[in-house]
Amino acid sequence: MLVSKPCPHCGGDVVMYRNPVPTVDVVIYDPALGVVLIERNNPPFGWALPGGFVDYGETLEHAAVREAKEETGLDVVLTGLVGVYSMPTRDDRQHTISITYSAVARDTSLLQAGDDAGTASFFQLHSLPDLVFDHRDILGDFSSKILRLHEHAAVGSSG
Amino acid sequence: MLVSKPCPHCGGDVVMYRNPVPTVDVVIYDPALGVVLIERNNPPFGWALPGGFVDYGETLEHAAVREAKEETGLDVVLTGLVGVYSMPTRDDRQHTISITYSAVARDTSLLQAGDDAGTASFFQLHSLPDLVFDHRDILGDFSSKILRLHEHAAVGSSG
Repeated sequence: MLVSKPCPHCGGDVVMYRNPVPTVDVVIYDPALGVVLIERNNPPFGWALPGGFVDYGETLEHAAVREAKEETGLDVVLTGLVGVYSMPTRDDRQHTISITYSAVARDTSLLQAGDDAGTASFFQLHSLPDLVFDHRDILGDFSSKILRLHEHAAVGSSG
Repeated sequence: MLVSKPCPHCGGDVVMYRNPVPTVDVVIYDPALGVVLIERNNPPFGWALPGGFVDYGETLEHAAVREAKEETGLDVVLTGLVGVYSMPTRDDRQHTISITYSAVARDTSLLQAGDDAGTASFFQLHSLPDLVFDHRDILGDFSSKILRLHEHAAVGSSG
């Protein structure tokens, strides 16, 4: 889509392409502790998965590991792709796309909130706080998957 | 990343954020015919998966179905996510991210090249032409997956 913004010097229209903005989110999971959420210091306020914008020249995987570290203090290993989320309404501010990875932390005891977050905590999947954006849907997808695997594993052990 | 470009009116620097640009690609597969490739009319010249830029305000899935139709004439049903590809070097022109879906065509007989393509054809996975971007890698990922499933299915039938 072509959009224009005014030149800050002369006020004339500067035309440019506008694309949805790629972001990454990370579901950092521990079987005992649950998933890591951060409480946002910036609007929209509330709890969210750690994540952020993908830098130009950076891979999605690099962005995911970097954002996890910046926002939670955790060094993570990515373990899979949870999904891609691109509904134009998912963020009121602009059209963003989330590529969401699952991950495990090398040392969960190092959890601490980063610059953009007030608090970082583990939450059990069955007792999540209010979440911003579509992060409840994303965690729903993640939960469904591991719950299904867990149920199938239970059937396997008793069959 | 912040970048600046000159105002076309006064030449002053206009600063803006630059992000990797999201695109979609589609692996349209038919068990008898193989996968659909298009021969590009624009640089880089060569064969490629059908795909293109995601419009602002459009979902990834919509973009994938739209681009498949525009470039191959085919109405497709998306069947899965092949992967996400974001190496900054994957396109010499700019940093793009491909979200690649698998799909099946409702009617393969309707295949015809669209505006951006010289030719559109089915190719067997074991006899692909030279491909541009990282589309050989993407088709490698797709092939590995269906080959593995095929091999496991064969073992199942003889076991």
